[in-house]
Amino acid sequence: MKNLQTGHSLRIGVLGGGQLGLMMIQAAIDLDLRVEVMDPSEKAPCAKFTHRFITGDLNDAQSVYQFGKNLDIITIEIEHVSVEGLRKLEKSGVKVIPKPDHIALIQDKGLQKQFFEDNNIPTSDFILIEAGGNISSLGLPIVQKLRTGGYDGRGVQILKTTADIVEKGFPEACVLEKAVDIDKELGVIVARNSSGQTSIFPVVESVFDPKVNLVSSLIAPANINKNTAAKAQALALQVLEAMDFEGLMAVELFLDSDGDLLVNEVAPRTHNSGHHTIEANKTSQFSQHLRAVVGLPLGDVSLLHNAAGMINLLGAAGAYGTPVYEGLSEAQSIPGVHPHLYGKSEVKPYRKMGHVTVTGPDIDLVQKRLLKLRESLCVSGTKEK
Amino acid sequence: MKNLQTGHSLRIGVLGGGQLGLMMIQAAIDLDLRVEVMDPSEKAPCAKFTHRFITGDLNDAQSVYQFGKNLDIITIEIEHVSVEGLRKLEKSGVKVIPKPDHIALIQDKGLQKQFFEDNNIPTSDFILIEAGGNISSLGLPIVQKLRTGGYDGRGVQILKTTADIVEKGFPEACVLEKAVDIDKELGVIVARNSSGQTSIFPVVESVFDPKVNLVSSLIAPANINKNTAAKAQALALQVLEAMDFEGLMAVELFLDSDGDLLVNEVAPRTHNSGHHTIEANKTSQFSQHLRAVVGLPLGDVSLLHNAAGMINLLGAAGAYGTPVYEGLSEAQSIPGVHPHLYGKSEVKPYRKMGHVTVTGPDIDLVQKRLLKLRESLCVSGTKEK
Repeated sequence: MKNLQTGHSLRIGVLGGGQLGLMMIQAAIDLDLRVEVMDPSEKAPCAKFTHRFITGDLNDAQSVYQFGKNLDIITIEIEHVSVEGLRKLEKSGVKVIPKPDHIALIQDKGLQKQFFEDNNIPTSDFILIEAGGNISSLGLPIVQKLRTGGYDGRGVQILKTTADIVEKGFPEACVLEKAVDIDKELGVIVARNSSGQTSIFPVVESVFDPKVNLVSSLIAPANINKNTAAKAQALALQVLEAMDFEGLMAVELFLDSDGDLLVNEVAPRTHNSGHHTIEANKTSQFSQHLRAVVGLPLGDVSLLHNAAGMINLLGAAGAYGTPVYEGLSEAQSIPGVHPHLYGKSEVKPYRKMGHVTVTGPDIDLVQKRLLKLRESLCVSGTKEK
Repeated sequence: MKNLQTGHSLRIGVLGGGQLGLMMIQAAIDLDLRVEVMDPSEKAPCAKFTHRFITGDLNDAQSVYQFGKNLDIITIEIEHVSVEGLRKLEKSGVKVIPKPDHIALIQDKGLQKQFFEDNNIPTSDFILIEAGGNISSLGLPIVQKLRTGGYDGRGVQILKTTADIVEKGFPEACVLEKAVDIDKELGVIVARNSSGQTSIFPVVESVFDPKVNLVSSLIAPANINKNTAAKAQALALQVLEAMDFEGLMAVELFLDSDGDLLVNEVAPRTHNSGHHTIEANKTSQFSQHLRAVVGLPLGDVSLLHNAAGMINLLGAAGAYGTPVYEGLSEAQSIPGVHPHLYGKSEVKPYRKMGHVTVTGPDIDLVQKRLLKLRESLCVSGTKEK
């Protein structure tokens, strides 16, 4: 029997070899955890930094089964994977975290919303198209989301007028949500290990760039009152417990203009809204995920700094070819600046190429530095189109 | 021309693939620095985590040259390497940091002591055997060190009596040092980049285990008065500047019973006495070394915690085979405990298998936790001899 105590000599498979997997590997090295990775691209960020890397279709049940059948544990860094393959692995005795049923639930934004409603988890009003509900009951504007396959804002559109509803149409299997009058977008990462120990990270605040619908900056702790922060953390834990979830999960919430909290979506994995935890918290989301997966005691996740922030490094508009990280050298002379490049060999417009975390003594200083970074950093490319 | 600004796309070669190289790679991933490694053992900790790993004799000039000739930068994680090979690489236009002359100086403990004396850097009285000096002038006890090849305390012996001098004898090329009445053993890590910017880490205090002559625990900051700390940092910087050193260097000092500081030895690389900086300082020694090597601005090295400590995880007496990290799982439920395993496939008695850093609000609590760890952790093996 392998040593589940320290995880040493365990073989852990990760579906997906992107930046989330890479940062997981950096944390796994500390515990000598043997991580093996499958990703469709041979150029995936993880490819050079793992005991075993294979290319394969994450949505093909047979590929997933073949990759994992001889491993001790399987986990994910992306939720768009073959649940059928994972169920087959679970049947054959491989420990799968998170559970295939949880991944299936989260893959379908319709089922996810229904789950929130069924478990009295506050969320925006919605209807499922195939349910043939009365659209007018939602009013306008409406947020229309494809039930499956959406990612990083793709598969989401806003219907502002009845004309939109006709023009943009309703594809099969989508969920319509009443648009929330959003005051703030918040995030809470929660984790649970096999012995039932749970952990809740401090609440973070996300600022989205509407142009690309990606988080453009993040602030920790969120600029909200203690009462709201405690409620947000309690809600995130409620979702985890309602699902009986094992592993690490990111919960996205809205604080609306009435001061009410609504759960928007959850991700059953490490998340962009937790990247700052590498430098800003006593235990990072990546280390915590591994602890949960291997069955180790969960770590203390309190903040190491009064304030922290993060900006994504996105490929510039029209940037192609080999990435060039303009301004990054100078940025490193700013105190508390921690760059993380993902090692992607090609840049594309708005592609996530890395992120920069800023830590500091107070939120104002951190925000000043984030602004300075946003103005001085640019990921261009060797080819311009 | 490669992007020296961010280091991105630079090819950096590291001589030595042990734990120091591995922790350097973890830091290099953040900046997407392409690290390539040569080590004599195919089982070296770095083997699975680098863009290119080759086996080769670090002391063979031709192997070192062949490994490095197509790279942009060469650096080291161990000083026992072929200086001839490095000089050849430098001539062929490869940037070598630290400079071959500095490595040569430090490889020879005799030349090193002579350098301290010639540059008015306080150090213990000594004579070089081939110099035929008057041994009696040193008095007893005498510390006898092989001039070259010593490592982790090997090649060092204490001569307590005149009988010892006769019995243990004088091998060729050794340095005899007057034994210092040591109050504390201190360490200061300093760095300098190509633009001449320097950085000095806080002073640390090392506690040695006489049984194996390896650091058994380390405390940061050192438990000394501010004045002594400032003097130790100034001395470390004096050594760096006297050598015109570029890169990162660890300076070991003695605080003697009269309260005087003496420089013992320097290492031209990251060092065991700086492992705690990964969690305890705003910039780790590994990140700082890379910044210096690539020519980036050096980072802020102030402590993140009031106190930090570190213990090495050494193979237990009689432990062979596959390592078993007893007590490590439980240890991770202690706040502020950060294990680092080196991924060595075989344990041997007193072999460095990993380390554990402890961070905390005060030195007493950190020392209590270190003691608890020392009692509860053991690296045994699957084979006992």
